[in-house]
Amino acid sequence: MDRKRLVILGSTGSVGRQTLDIVRAFPDAFDVVGLCAGKNLDLFKDQVDEFNPRYINTVASLGIHNGASQIPAEEIASLPEVDIVMGATVGCAGMGPALAAIDAGKTLALANKEVIVMAGEVLVRRASESGATILPVDSEPSAIWQCLEGEETPPAKFIITASGGAFRDRTWESLHDVTPAEALKHPTWTMGAKITVDSASLMNKAFEVIETRWLFDIPYEQIDVLIHRQSIIHSMVEFVDGTVKAHLGPTDMRHPIQYALFYPARYENPTLPRFDPVKTGSLTFEAMDPSLYPCFELTLDYAKRGGTWSAVLAGADEAAVSLFLDGRIRFTEIPDVVASTLAAHSPIMEHSIEDAIQAAAWATEHTLAQHSAGATI
Amino acid sequence: MDRKRLVILGSTGSVGRQTLDIVRAFPDAFDVVGLCAGKNLDLFKDQVDEFNPRYINTVASLGIHNGASQIPAEEIASLPEVDIVMGATVGCAGMGPALAAIDAGKTLALANKEVIVMAGEVLVRRASESGATILPVDSEPSAIWQCLEGEETPPAKFIITASGGAFRDRTWESLHDVTPAEALKHPTWTMGAKITVDSASLMNKAFEVIETRWLFDIPYEQIDVLIHRQSIIHSMVEFVDGTVKAHLGPTDMRHPIQYALFYPARYENPTLPRFDPVKTGSLTFEAMDPSLYPCFELTLDYAKRGGTWSAVLAGADEAAVSLFLDGRIRFTEIPDVVASTLAAHSPIMEHSIEDAIQAAAWATEHTLAQHSAGATI
Repeated sequence: MDRKRLVILGSTGSVGRQTLDIVRAFPDAFDVVGLCAGKNLDLFKDQVDEFNPRYINTVASLGIHNGASQIPAEEIASLPEVDIVMGATVGCAGMGPALAAIDAGKTLALANKEVIVMAGEVLVRRASESGATILPVDSEPSAIWQCLEGEETPPAKFIITASGGAFRDRTWESLHDVTPAEALKHPTWTMGAKITVDSASLMNKAFEVIETRWLFDIPYEQIDVLIHRQSIIHSMVEFVDGTVKAHLGPTDMRHPIQYALFYPARYENPTLPRFDPVKTGSLTFEAMDPSLYPCFELTLDYAKRGGTWSAVLAGADEAAVSLFLDGRIRFTEIPDVVASTLAAHSPIMEHSIEDAIQAAAWATEHTLAQHSAGATI
Repeated sequence: MDRKRLVILGSTGSVGRQTLDIVRAFPDAFDVVGLCAGKNLDLFKDQVDEFNPRYINTVASLGIHNGASQIPAEEIASLPEVDIVMGATVGCAGMGPALAAIDAGKTLALANKEVIVMAGEVLVRRASESGATILPVDSEPSAIWQCLEGEETPPAKFIITASGGAFRDRTWESLHDVTPAEALKHPTWTMGAKITVDSASLMNKAFEVIETRWLFDIPYEQIDVLIHRQSIIHSMVEFVDGTVKAHLGPTDMRHPIQYALFYPARYENPTLPRFDPVKTGSLTFEAMDPSLYPCFELTLDYAKRGGTWSAVLAGADEAAVSLFLDGRIRFTEIPDVVASTLAAHSPIMEHSIEDAIQAAAWATEHTLAQHSAGATI
C-alpha cells in the first residue's frame, strides 16, 4: 500500500500514544510527517527519535530535534504533503490545528470531541467548503459510522451506548465526597484524565450526542442514549425498517483509531484484542434517565439552543474538571459550576468560529476566576 | 417506485403468507405476477382472489381461477416479465422452480434452504452463469448479508446464532419420549412445521451453516455457531481487524422478507414490530458443543465431504422429520435414521444438479421405505 502521510496532534496523550501503536504495528503503512504535543517532553522526544517526523511542535522551544523543525501546529496540520491528521489533543485548545487541517481540505480523524462540541455546525460547513473529511475516532460515533457504511436509506435512530462511568451504581446525591482518584477509575475504558472524569459525570456522553448530531447531520430527537455496562456494543443504528445494526468489540481505542487511519480498508492487527462473545457471556441494556445525571441533562438542554452555548459548555466543563482534579470543587459541584457560567453568558446565535473560540475561552476563564480565591476542599 | 413484478413459490406456507403481508403493507410496490402453492387450496384460492396473479400453480387442477391460468411453477418462475421470485417452498421439491428462476437470470429470494443444502455449489455456479442473484431470506444469512453491506475487506468469520430450539434446556438423552407437539413449540420463532422440528434437532442450524457457506463463498472453518437464547442478534460478522457487526431485530420473518424484496432500499413498515433493547434487557451467548447435538454434528461432518452427501442429508432429513411427525419414529431416532441412509449412499463427487436431485429423492424414498412397515410408536 502507499504510505499514508500522517500528522498527530497530541501525540503524547492517550489517543496519540495509541495512534503510534498502530503505526508501529504497520511499519510500512505510515510516514509520520509531524508530531505535536504538550507538556510531556520526555515522551515527546522519545517519539520524535523513534518516528523521525520532519516537523514538530510542543510547548517547549525544542528548535531542531533529531532533524525535525519546530513550526506551529497549525502549519503542520495543513502541510501540502499531509494525507491525514489525527486530532488527538484534549479540550478546547485543539481547535486551532484541527481547524487548520479542515481549512486545508485534509482528512481529519478527530478524537478531540470538545472541538466539535464548541462549533460542530461551523466546522462541518467549513469541511464541506474545503473538501475536508472529518472522521470520528471516539468509539461511539465510530461505531455509528461503521454501521452506516453501505446503507443507502437514511437512518431512523442512533442508539449511543453508555457504560455509566465510574459511579454508575451510585446516586448523584451520594457522590458528595468522591475523590479525583475515584472518578478516574473507569469501569471499562482506559482513557485520559479529562474524558474519564467527563465519563463519570456523564458530561462525556452528552458531548458524544452533540458530536454525533453534527458529524452525521441528524437531529437530536433521533439520538438515544442507553446504559450498556459492558461497553461491548459501542453503539447501534436503527433503520427505518426496524433493522438494528450494532458494532461490537473490545474496549480498546486502538480499534476505532485503526479504522479511521485505514478507512475504508480493514487490516488484521495481531496486537489488538478480540471480542469473544462466550467469554462476555451477556450484554445488558438499561434505560437512561437524564434527570439522574445533571451534567448530561444540563448540557443537552443548552446544546439544543444552538449558537455559542455549546462552546461555553465545552469551555466551562474543561475548567470545572480541572478545578475538581485540583481539589478546588467537589465532583457534585461540576454541573453547578458549569450552570453558573452558562447563566453569565450572552450568547451569539449566528456565530463564527471565532465567536465560538472566544466564548469557550471566556467560559474557561470565567469559571476558573469564580474559584481562584477558594481554598481547596 | 416502480412496481416489482413478483412470483411467490409456496404462497400458502409460513414465509409465503408473510411475503403477502409485506405486499399488503406496500400496496403500490408489487405486481403479483404468479402464485404457486401446494395442498392448502382454500387459502390459495383466497390469495388468488385478493392478489389477482396472472399465473398460478397448485397440486389441484384449478384450470383458470379468477382469470389466472394454471401453468407449471417452473414456467411461472422464469416468465420474462418477472423481476423477483420468492422461493418460499419447503423441502427438496422446491428445487425445480428455484432452479428455473436461477437459469432464467432472475433475482431469487430463497427461503427454501433445502434447495441450497442439496446443491449449493452448483446453484451458485449456475447463478453466476445466468446472471441470477440469490438473496437470503432466512434470518441468519440475511443478517450476515446485511452486516457485509458496504464492506470492502473480506470477512474473517461469520457467527451464526442459534436459539437452541424447543429442547435447548434438555439433554439429547432426555428427549426419548418427546411428542411432535412438543417439538413444534419453538421458543422464539413462529415458523412452519418442518423447520421447527429441524430447529429442535439443530439440523436446521447445520443447514444454515451449509447455506451460508455457499451463499457467501466462505470456508466452513470460518463459520461459528453460538447459542444465543433471545434470537435478537440474528447473526454477526467478524472482520479481520477484530470489528464485529451484529444484526438485531425482533423475531419476525417479515423483516428479512421485506429486506430481500426491497433490497437495497429500506422502507418503514408500521405493521412490523420493533426491537426495544431495554425491554429485551439482556442478550446472552453460550458456546455450542456440537457433540451434544447429533444431527448438527452428523450433518456438517457429511456436508464437508462435498459431492452428493448434502443432497442425501436434505432428502433423508425431510423423510425423517415426516416419519417423526407421523409418529413412526422417535425424535431421538432422527439422526440414526439419517445416518442409516447416508451409510447406504454411494456418493458422486463431481456432480450435476440432476445427480443432486436424484440423490435427494433416493434418500427420501430409501428413508421412508426403511420404516414403511413399522407400526407407529
